[in-house]
Amino acid sequence: MPSERNVDVQELADAVRRGSPRAVARLISLVEDAAAVPGRDGVLRQVMARLATGAGGPCGARVIGLTGAPGVGKSTTTNMLIAALRGRGHRVGVLAVDPSSPFTGGALLGDRVRMRGHATDPDVFIRSMSSRGHLGGLAWAAPQALRVLAAAGCDVILLETVGIGQIEVDIARLADTTVVLLAPGMGDDVQAAKAGILEIADVFVVNKADHEGAQATVRELRTMTSVAKGPWRPPIVTTVATRGDGAGDLLTALDKHLAHLEESGEDHRRRLTRAREEIESAALARLRSRFAGPHDDRLDALARRLLAGEVDLYTAADDVIAALNRSARPTV
Amino acid sequence: MPSERNVDVQELADAVRRGSPRAVARLISLVEDAAAVPGRDGVLRQVMARLATGAGGPCGARVIGLTGAPGVGKSTTTNMLIAALRGRGHRVGVLAVDPSSPFTGGALLGDRVRMRGHATDPDVFIRSMSSRGHLGGLAWAAPQALRVLAAAGCDVILLETVGIGQIEVDIARLADTTVVLLAPGMGDDVQAAKAGILEIADVFVVNKADHEGAQATVRELRTMTSVAKGPWRPPIVTTVATRGDGAGDLLTALDKHLAHLEESGEDHRRRLTRAREEIESAALARLRSRFAGPHDDRLDALARRLLAGEVDLYTAADDVIAALNRSARPTV
Repeated sequence: MPSERNVDVQELADAVRRGSPRAVARLISLVEDAAAVPGRDGVLRQVMARLATGAGGPCGARVIGLTGAPGVGKSTTTNMLIAALRGRGHRVGVLAVDPSSPFTGGALLGDRVRMRGHATDPDVFIRSMSSRGHLGGLAWAAPQALRVLAAAGCDVILLETVGIGQIEVDIARLADTTVVLLAPGMGDDVQAAKAGILEIADVFVVNKADHEGAQATVRELRTMTSVAKGPWRPPIVTTVATRGDGAGDLLTALDKHLAHLEESGEDHRRRLTRAREEIESAALARLRSRFAGPHDDRLDALARRLLAGEVDLYTAADDVIAALNRSARPTV
Repeated sequence: MPSERNVDVQELADAVRRGSPRAVARLISLVEDAAAVPGRDGVLRQVMARLATGAGGPCGARVIGLTGAPGVGKSTTTNMLIAALRGRGHRVGVLAVDPSSPFTGGALLGDRVRMRGHATDPDVFIRSMSSRGHLGGLAWAAPQALRVLAAAGCDVILLETVGIGQIEVDIARLADTTVVLLAPGMGDDVQAAKAGILEIADVFVVNKADHEGAQATVRELRTMTSVAKGPWRPPIVTTVATRGDGAGDLLTALDKHLAHLEESGEDHRRRLTRAREEIESAALARLRSRFAGPHDDRLDALARRLLAGEVDLYTAADDVIAALNRSARPTV
């Protein structure tokens, strides 16, 4: 775990701006630390404030989310997309978020190996991020990591999530375009669990299109999307990511969705909602660090009274907030 | 969705205390509503305050968590445990939490059908809860639902989670004893993902023990637990839940863990930590409802400035907090 000490704030900010992979990695580690331990964000705040004032701001990158059940081929598809985007001259960031790996202090790296083809490319930044510490930490940390990658000059960022669930849905909301991947022949459990994921798709990819049942999956999706409400009907792209088949079609679908976002003004609306949520998460994290310190006796005393049935939960929560207001410094 | 209107607070509290299944269901629905929509908790607060003042307090129930990958037989094991606990005369609550079902407004009910054998038993309360709205909502709502079940006289509550991931780990922390279920012959993906779950086990169950490979799973677990740190080594129980085989062994393992918790004082420590976290979640939810209202122009204005790069995230968050402090009423 990197230490906050001995960090030259301006130097780190400058190195990130220059696109130093080492500096990017270090700053994202500071983000992870701050998410895991409330209040450990002194240096991070200073660096991020310096990065925020750059031309265009750090929100300028296009964020493409990739999500789907394990086994559909997300990493190979990400790999294919990296190659296609590099072919267009983009600097590409990849943030692979793995909420199912809470204890290892780093996401499962097996799949990442497949991206090694790009490991020596100075214009490709790949980072895994797992969910350390408090639930909700990831909701705060992921946008910060995106900001770091954007500040390093990545104009397209692929945001890959492992698995399907509420966290994936929340992470998907950070993306401008969400790609949902499916593969033929997945089990019933997966079909059921997909329920939540299908609704967030802007683009569908049926990967492993050379496998049996691919056309049935496409037909199923076509039926589903034909009743889609709203002005955008998610296109269905078939790929064989291991061979690079369908990369062009996928880029075209992504371009079309970007054009739709810009023409409809949805682009701005999505980014505004995201900025609101980001501020909200940051404010909550800051408040949490104030009253959830390990040595806060007031919270302990309230917890004891709650256990004893002397106070109800809501009154206890109000007491914490009242104490927070009393202790609030006039200038934060 | 139940309405807050036309609720007689005292009547609802009394009916929950009497163990009316209808009242329990209604109050848990109010919990879900409050988790989904910040600020919609007026009636809930009043009812919960009344329930909190009862003898013993609503924390009195013993909570047993059951977690494991899909397909290991959690529902049948829960079913088996319900029968065993009913045989001992307990009133049993079951809360099945499904974070992977964010949009349906109710957990997947397929598995629940297997518990129907207990549906007409007035001393068994079964409730599913999915994750609606903001991530973190479930972390707040699940303990509230446990309080409701405890207030209804359930002295043992089975807390079942669907799937494996960070949310499951967080939910498991609500339990006094966490049972991790495995079954022979699960795939590699599952093996890897288990990494986070294994560490939270107080008791292991190898279900489907009549299947090939069960003894290998047991041996693997035995090797793993033999190097366990701390005074408690998780026992390994083999079951065939569909036939009720192993129910007695599982109860014995649960009894032993309870005795260990009480003798070591760990019982009290766990409950105190939980109470702290519960107060914290409630306080954050309350703060969130103050500044995250849909019509809060200040947050919108800050979001616009963040997008334009005129302000950095941390300064924006501090502005929100400062506004919160200014607007704080002296008596909350």
